[in-house]
Amino acid sequence: MSPPLRPFRPPFASLLFAILALVLPFAGAPAQAQGQAVTQAPQPRPPQPPSQPSAAAAPLAPAPVTPVFERTLPNGMKVIVKEDHRAPTVVHLVLYRVGSIDEVNGRTGVAHALEHMMFKGTKKIGPGEFSRRVAERGGRENAFTSRDYTGYYQQIGARHLSEMMQLEADRMVNLRLTAEEFDKEIRVVMEERRWRIEDRAQSQVYEQLMASAFVTSPYRTPTAGWMSDLESMKVDDLKDWYRDWYTPSNAVLVVAGDVSGEAVWRLAERTYGRIPARALPVRKPQREPEQRGVRRSWVKAQAENPYVIMGFKVPKLEDVERDVEPYALEVLSAVLDADENGRLTRDLVRGTRVANRAGAGYDMSGRGPTLFMLDGTPAAGRNTEEVERALRDEVARIARDGVRPEELERIKTQYVASRIYQRDSVMSQAMEIGVLEVIGMSHRDADRILERIRAVTAEQVQAVAQKYFGDDALTVVTLLPQPISNDAPKRPPAGVRH
Amino acid sequence: MSPPLRPFRPPFASLLFAILALVLPFAGAPAQAQGQAVTQAPQPRPPQPPSQPSAAAAPLAPAPVTPVFERTLPNGMKVIVKEDHRAPTVVHLVLYRVGSIDEVNGRTGVAHALEHMMFKGTKKIGPGEFSRRVAERGGRENAFTSRDYTGYYQQIGARHLSEMMQLEADRMVNLRLTAEEFDKEIRVVMEERRWRIEDRAQSQVYEQLMASAFVTSPYRTPTAGWMSDLESMKVDDLKDWYRDWYTPSNAVLVVAGDVSGEAVWRLAERTYGRIPARALPVRKPQREPEQRGVRRSWVKAQAENPYVIMGFKVPKLEDVERDVEPYALEVLSAVLDADENGRLTRDLVRGTRVANRAGAGYDMSGRGPTLFMLDGTPAAGRNTEEVERALRDEVARIARDGVRPEELERIKTQYVASRIYQRDSVMSQAMEIGVLEVIGMSHRDADRILERIRAVTAEQVQAVAQKYFGDDALTVVTLLPQPISNDAPKRPPAGVRH
Repeated sequence: MSPPLRPFRPPFASLLFAILALVLPFAGAPAQAQGQAVTQAPQPRPPQPPSQPSAAAAPLAPAPVTPVFERTLPNGMKVIVKEDHRAPTVVHLVLYRVGSIDEVNGRTGVAHALEHMMFKGTKKIGPGEFSRRVAERGGRENAFTSRDYTGYYQQIGARHLSEMMQLEADRMVNLRLTAEEFDKEIRVVMEERRWRIEDRAQSQVYEQLMASAFVTSPYRTPTAGWMSDLESMKVDDLKDWYRDWYTPSNAVLVVAGDVSGEAVWRLAERTYGRIPARALPVRKPQREPEQRGVRRSWVKAQAENPYVIMGFKVPKLEDVERDVEPYALEVLSAVLDADENGRLTRDLVRGTRVANRAGAGYDMSGRGPTLFMLDGTPAAGRNTEEVERALRDEVARIARDGVRPEELERIKTQYVASRIYQRDSVMSQAMEIGVLEVIGMSHRDADRILERIRAVTAEQVQAVAQKYFGDDALTVVTLLPQPISNDAPKRPPAGVRH
Repeated sequence: MSPPLRPFRPPFASLLFAILALVLPFAGAPAQAQGQAVTQAPQPRPPQPPSQPSAAAAPLAPAPVTPVFERTLPNGMKVIVKEDHRAPTVVHLVLYRVGSIDEVNGRTGVAHALEHMMFKGTKKIGPGEFSRRVAERGGRENAFTSRDYTGYYQQIGARHLSEMMQLEADRMVNLRLTAEEFDKEIRVVMEERRWRIEDRAQSQVYEQLMASAFVTSPYRTPTAGWMSDLESMKVDDLKDWYRDWYTPSNAVLVVAGDVSGEAVWRLAERTYGRIPARALPVRKPQREPEQRGVRRSWVKAQAENPYVIMGFKVPKLEDVERDVEPYALEVLSAVLDADENGRLTRDLVRGTRVANRAGAGYDMSGRGPTLFMLDGTPAAGRNTEEVERALRDEVARIARDGVRPEELERIKTQYVASRIYQRDSVMSQAMEIGVLEVIGMSHRDADRILERIRAVTAEQVQAVAQKYFGDDALTVVTLLPQPISNDAPKRPPAGVRH
């Protein structure tokens, strides 16, 4: 998959926005080639300008409000159905509550490697056969691994849903993991890591930011895995992972589209419902110890421009009703970096011209701890120290002077509208529901979160700007650009096409 | 155990010196109180002035050269016997090749916690009974956990060796791990962490140094474990650890003292030899990726004085015959910090008086990667930046001007002599043998290592000083001292007495 097409999750996107960013580029994407390891990993990566909804994702018609069907199979697998009858298609999505946050040192990257192997066939069907059938029936499919979850979906004519559910349930228990297939596929996975991280200076900087900001949280490791772990990975590591985590009680089924809840439930009983329940391994909290001083790293890598990224430790959303600060931080992030009229672009890029690009971002929700990030690339003749100071000055200005009411209203209106607009995509609806469920919240929280965002006050934004942007919980990584050699092609490796 | 008595391993000590530092303070120590969790963890910690051999450890007579008996039981456990008939006692030491390097995130500290539980009895004998018997027979015992290994020993009259071997073999397979005992003991372990790390500013700085210098190597985690992992630890985690790693093929038995090899072998066959062989888990290499830029952290903690420590990534000893640089780095470390006449004390403490204390250190051998460390405390009116510069200037001076032949000879002679002197302790002999074996070398390498040290040239020392002390592989952590509150007593917690 080449960068412009790639639905990588920008780390600066909010939860809901992240879902959109993940999904939208696929709305008009062609069906995957037969037999390909169709994989997209929404791994954390350096911030990019937020994706704009593509034309292909434009709504067919206003989405009607329908109740959501929700019931749990006796084996613990939750079934959620969102009816949407605007087109005779469905999105069939299975999310496992397992991602790189569940990995241990020495075996990082195993969640993503297993996701690749899920396309290699089962006891019943051959390698690539599932993908071939999806393509033959005019559907599209993909899969993704993040820090928090691993997901598989097909978007296809509603009459094929039953077959999709049979096939997906089949690979939940019958996956064929052979050393031969693995030895081939792990080379694709390593090539993907090289292409996505090691050949991209800003990705290396982001990797270093996470590795140094977090000391104990597994968020410190990249979803792509450390190269040494990929090199030493064996098919047995994947077998353990599959046995441990691919169980009904660790999965959520979301079906959205031209179906009824009861019909999906009957199909689910006959497919996923036949899989026996199995206990899950113990998950350890791995609470991050308090940071008590700045951490700074410099990374030398081939690049044209310098770059700096800062991460401040801030709270994440834990309680939709009682929390206040996460919503205020989310709005602060939007005030700084909502769009071309966000303060950073207005002041630093168009105003003082200290930066070619400047961004802010905050992951409000997730299974692990979170950072509020600021980043930027200096303009010609300026340096990263100036950009760093300018970025922090923008936050300091809000801490001192607050946000004007009309600015706040504009940003909040825009924020809420863009999220509601995104729900016109059936795929976005499915992802929004599924992700809220796997990170430990409820799909019913989505609207309430938007209401809470809408209620954020200027004082609350000012308060978080005052509270969280000191030096004690700050991590900074600066890219020191090195001359670019011409020996490395920058095309995506085979098997990573999307 | 209070600080002056505590045989913590100074991270700046070489392998052989570390063994001494670990062991010597026990030479004259009283037998452990009955039923105590007698545990010493030679965890990495901030450098301290090297321990001097205590009077109690002075040799009884020149150690006679005796051949070493070495044979492996059918179940994979190696038996090594070093005869030394100067006194009618033996050291009975079992080292397991498992330490915090084998731990995974979420379960750090488990090696050390299990070491505590090894004193809680087996199916055959009650809690504390083993320790009680050692004390009754006039012996002393202890145990220790490091990054690379976990060890248990008794020093006792030779006629009790058979009983010691029965008891030690018994707890290799029959340990009784109950939730009740664990729930009590884990509180002792947590208290120990608080007392050893969280209440000591330099220990916090050292913890941060390791956590930031190493990104993937498990050396980045403290042997004491992260507090969150101790808080969430369950007795099942210890059961898994015990089942996985406490097997004959993962253990080395070293007996040194007034015994014959064949006699020990016959006892070993009847005790350890009856334990069935069991396969070990896969160990992943977790190679550290190349560092490409400075990493700096600041740590605020209650302390009287500022402090700075630097770690440079350098090679470790892998091949006793072919390697050159590790020996040169070892000698460089001794030139800088051999004793009161090392260059750092001479120039920085007594000379320019920029520092109250200045040190250098290098761990030549180990299962994981290593650092060359420089550290110091500024004198009144001076700051850490000056100390940092002065420390690096000393290395730069050697890189530029080299070392004078007479200085090199003096340092090397002193180095070799102190190591040979240390071998007069039977306990030191046993540890030297055992540690070389568990880190993947041979006890036969000990003399050859000293010969290689003796052969290091001034040019080799200058070459490593030129090669490894740039900015790319440097990690620096600076302590920002905070006012000391008087609410925390600094006495060792109960159960950590040595």
